[in-house]
Amino acid sequence: MYDLLKPLRIVEASSFVASPSAGLYLAQMGATVIRVDQIGGGPDFNRWPRSDTGASLYWEGLNKGKKSVAVDLGRPEGRALLAALATAPGDDGGLFVTNYPVDGFLSHETLSRRRADLVTVRVMGQANGGPALDYTVNCAVGIPQITGPASLGDHPVNHVLPAWDLLTGAYAAFALLAAERQRRETGRGQEVRIPLSDVGIATIANLGQLAEVLTTGDNRARYGNDVYGAFGRDYVTADGKRLMVMAITPRQWSGLVKALDIDDAVARIEGERDVSFAKDEGARFEHRDALAPLVEAAVATRTSAELGPLFDSLGCCWGPYQTMIEAARDPVLVRDNPVFATIEQASGLTYPVPGAMATIPQATRQPPIRAPRLGEHSDEVLADLLGLSSGAIGRLHDEGVVA
Amino acid sequence: MYDLLKPLRIVEASSFVASPSAGLYLAQMGATVIRVDQIGGGPDFNRWPRSDTGASLYWEGLNKGKKSVAVDLGRPEGRALLAALATAPGDDGGLFVTNYPVDGFLSHETLSRRRADLVTVRVMGQANGGPALDYTVNCAVGIPQITGPASLGDHPVNHVLPAWDLLTGAYAAFALLAAERQRRETGRGQEVRIPLSDVGIATIANLGQLAEVLTTGDNRARYGNDVYGAFGRDYVTADGKRLMVMAITPRQWSGLVKALDIDDAVARIEGERDVSFAKDEGARFEHRDALAPLVEAAVATRTSAELGPLFDSLGCCWGPYQTMIEAARDPVLVRDNPVFATIEQASGLTYPVPGAMATIPQATRQPPIRAPRLGEHSDEVLADLLGLSSGAIGRLHDEGVVA
Repeated sequence: MYDLLKPLRIVEASSFVASPSAGLYLAQMGATVIRVDQIGGGPDFNRWPRSDTGASLYWEGLNKGKKSVAVDLGRPEGRALLAALATAPGDDGGLFVTNYPVDGFLSHETLSRRRADLVTVRVMGQANGGPALDYTVNCAVGIPQITGPASLGDHPVNHVLPAWDLLTGAYAAFALLAAERQRRETGRGQEVRIPLSDVGIATIANLGQLAEVLTTGDNRARYGNDVYGAFGRDYVTADGKRLMVMAITPRQWSGLVKALDIDDAVARIEGERDVSFAKDEGARFEHRDALAPLVEAAVATRTSAELGPLFDSLGCCWGPYQTMIEAARDPVLVRDNPVFATIEQASGLTYPVPGAMATIPQATRQPPIRAPRLGEHSDEVLADLLGLSSGAIGRLHDEGVVA
Repeated sequence: MYDLLKPLRIVEASSFVASPSAGLYLAQMGATVIRVDQIGGGPDFNRWPRSDTGASLYWEGLNKGKKSVAVDLGRPEGRALLAALATAPGDDGGLFVTNYPVDGFLSHETLSRRRADLVTVRVMGQANGGPALDYTVNCAVGIPQITGPASLGDHPVNHVLPAWDLLTGAYAAFALLAAERQRRETGRGQEVRIPLSDVGIATIANLGQLAEVLTTGDNRARYGNDVYGAFGRDYVTADGKRLMVMAITPRQWSGLVKALDIDDAVARIEGERDVSFAKDEGARFEHRDALAPLVEAAVATRTSAELGPLFDSLGCCWGPYQTMIEAARDPVLVRDNPVFATIEQASGLTYPVPGAMATIPQATRQPPIRAPRLGEHSDEVLADLLGLSSGAIGRLHDEGVVA
């Protein structure tokens, strides 16, 4: 938690990964983020992974530090409350993050009639309003077909990390601040729509891959664990540990050659093939048939305990393959990492929880804040933002509009 | 291209994916982004994929719409120019995005002596300053071990999309705007550090997966192309097309059941197993042994031409598995997508190029701008930002400090 965005107040009506993660990033930088959900929880309230007691570890992970308001969105009164919250007055309010349909009761057109300078950031599936999810975008842009070993033939491999959702979420947080900045300069609100499918295909293009297939007329082959166009692959040590070893800069390459004592063999290949590897990662990729076996043999004769410090001392770039539980117990990644603090989460479980993914040396990091219980802040928010009396709020509870 | 960030001026000294993509997103929202590189190009200037003529399609993809200044960073005079540019005066300047080492000549401490309110966003590998890349982070947090079919045993599958780089880049663009916003309120500059490894492990935690392994004491199994905790997998149609079919919301599930006419069979399973699938995606995952064969058989008897419109009409969520070249030629994704325009890129090649990944209905989208040629804006930027005379700039060229 940092306070960079302290004055901002954002209302979030969202579910799944992309839109809630935008709210999470904003909250962890100090904004007040008010998530409004259906009473009983939206479609992501019970998502896996879940605890033994049935609490969604996923939901409480993505909603840390937010406030929660629960209303009945199936009823006009509940919908009106959400619209009123999204458009409540205040120079630093009127900021709305959602993945609700573009033309429904939370359309920007409808909401901006209540507040002309509203900024809406809307995460969408397809640009035309049709549904799309991370995995349906991923297959359509051609990633699963080039993931995994060539031995799989034409059997695609889906990713397990929802990369498109995550990228879309961070980009949505960025877009919200960009639109808010313009509003401060011009007084103008606007809607910024971010379709997952556009994020997918634009990113493929940003990485040069769209131009590659269009200009070559051919798809990239399946290179397994080799990093395309660079020197990088997994290798197994004498003690059976698997390491990812990469060299994309001259320093990383010279460090690797020195660490593994393969100078002579590399020079011989350079002579035979009339090529120089020192500054050209593309050449290292092209000649990996000769280079990788050298590295493989050299790594195989050394233990991971020996290689780690040696690699580190020479500026090599490497990482161990760890299972997720090994990662969770890794002192550098979690236990001793100031990004994490062990707190009691909304589920009642106590475990290490991260704050902002960034670190600001000049500021004091505030501990992460647990996710809210559903509706925990309903009364407080209705009173603060809409000026409702406790009597009025009580009636909304009695009528089942608020919980 | 949109003009939300028009007044901002950002200097970028960076390479590879994360840091340049942050600059790209800022430029596509209207900021002036000045990328400063070593004469002849930084370590990413020739990265693959490359065109027949040797131009990096990757570099020109990630640097669209930026200005380029080339200086000799190996010499004190060149380094001084970069420091002067990063800290040049102007209320909307003093914004610096980099992946240079934390303690080198571009340290925030050094630069902020020239401009106290400087905002530095620094993409790092590890938080301690050690090297890390997308692929070395990915293996360390446990993703490759749960990617791909169970038949691969314990052989990990690296991702091919640099998801951690991309997420870090978007988060860096967000962090820059957050810090700039606070500077406008307080006058204070600061450094925001974003280590790839922290982005990796914090994200695993944000998704609930860290809590999952810590509370269960066990790693998640390898589920192949099944989406964990939801109903989603690849299926093959009667005409041999592979589709990703998902159902995470009640509407998507009821649409799928209706489209495939499997109501009775699903009701029978619900009865036999005493479960209801309508509102519980977790239950659909748990009982996928019974549900997936139903969907598989139903999809296998229908052609893709039949299923696509049917799925769309019923609000189902699906996507075709396409190769990347099919994606590049997909009219919806590229040709007819207003995000793209066909322009001549820096390489001289003409192909479809995306602008901002977001769409703003209230604003006119400006066409994307090609990447600069290396050093294309050196003279203009040195004159504008540093007030150098043409004589002084000429001398810098003669001395080989600027190109």
